[in-house]
Amino acid sequence: MLQKIDHIAIAVRSIDEALRYYEQALGLTCEKREDVPSQKVRTAFLRVGEIYLELLEPMSLDGTVQKFLDKHGPGIHHISFATDDVAKQLSQAKQAGCQLIHDQPFDGANGKLVGFLHPTSTFGVLTEFCQKKN
Amino acid sequence: MLQKIDHIAIAVRSIDEALRYYEQALGLTCEKREDVPSQKVRTAFLRVGEIYLELLEPMSLDGTVQKFLDKHGPGIHHISFATDDVAKQLSQAKQAGCQLIHDQPFDGANGKLVGFLHPTSTFGVLTEFCQKKN
Repeated sequence: MLQKIDHIAIAVRSIDEALRYYEQALGLTCEKREDVPSQKVRTAFLRVGEIYLELLEPMSLDGTVQKFLDKHGPGIHHISFATDDVAKQLSQAKQAGCQLIHDQPFDGANGKLVGFLHPTSTFGVLTEFCQKKN
Repeated sequence: MLQKIDHIAIAVRSIDEALRYYEQALGLTCEKREDVPSQKVRTAFLRVGEIYLELLEPMSLDGTVQKFLDKHGPGIHHISFATDDVAKQLSQAKQAGCQLIHDQPFDGANGKLVGFLHPTSTFGVLTEFCQKKN
């Protein structure tokens, strides 16, 4: 079952520049920054209510976030739903006809187990499920 | 001050088709449907935790949602932050260098007062502030 939106991930060219906007124009606060070399991104997290905005900045020219920026420019990259069972959510979505990006959950940022649905089967929204690891 | 994300608005060509995905693949429930002729859109609201996903379907070929679909295809249209003072948030954002789409708040869907920041000054994310009317 989906519990809440965990985060909205936003691709940016520079986290430092984007943080100035989020902090000065919106009055939000960056709670955490984390580099995730395995996914070739730097991240920054701003809390709003029960969810986070997760800024994503490419660490290299061949990662998926850089490719997203090259194609679309900066903007919302994906939304992530918190669940207690990523594998079950992926299975439910597959049975309903969705295309999965990976068949099995894998380790994502921020100590979570994650899985993605392809945007061609989710009406244009790259959709992640995430689960806290025990 | 921003209290939470109020909703994530998602442009779709057909609410009926998109709802099948959100209900069957994700297990969410549509709580409300509302036509907003003044903005030339049909809407449907699905709750996830404290926020809503708001599906937007064009009611005519000359509205902003139809233009978004023509340019980008279906996907996330904007995110909306709940606040107790839209005018103050717009003023703060303007002082920080953001471009406003309208200088003053106006009546939006779902009985809210709203205002928008232009995505060119928000790192690609069309950004709304919304406030419950008293």
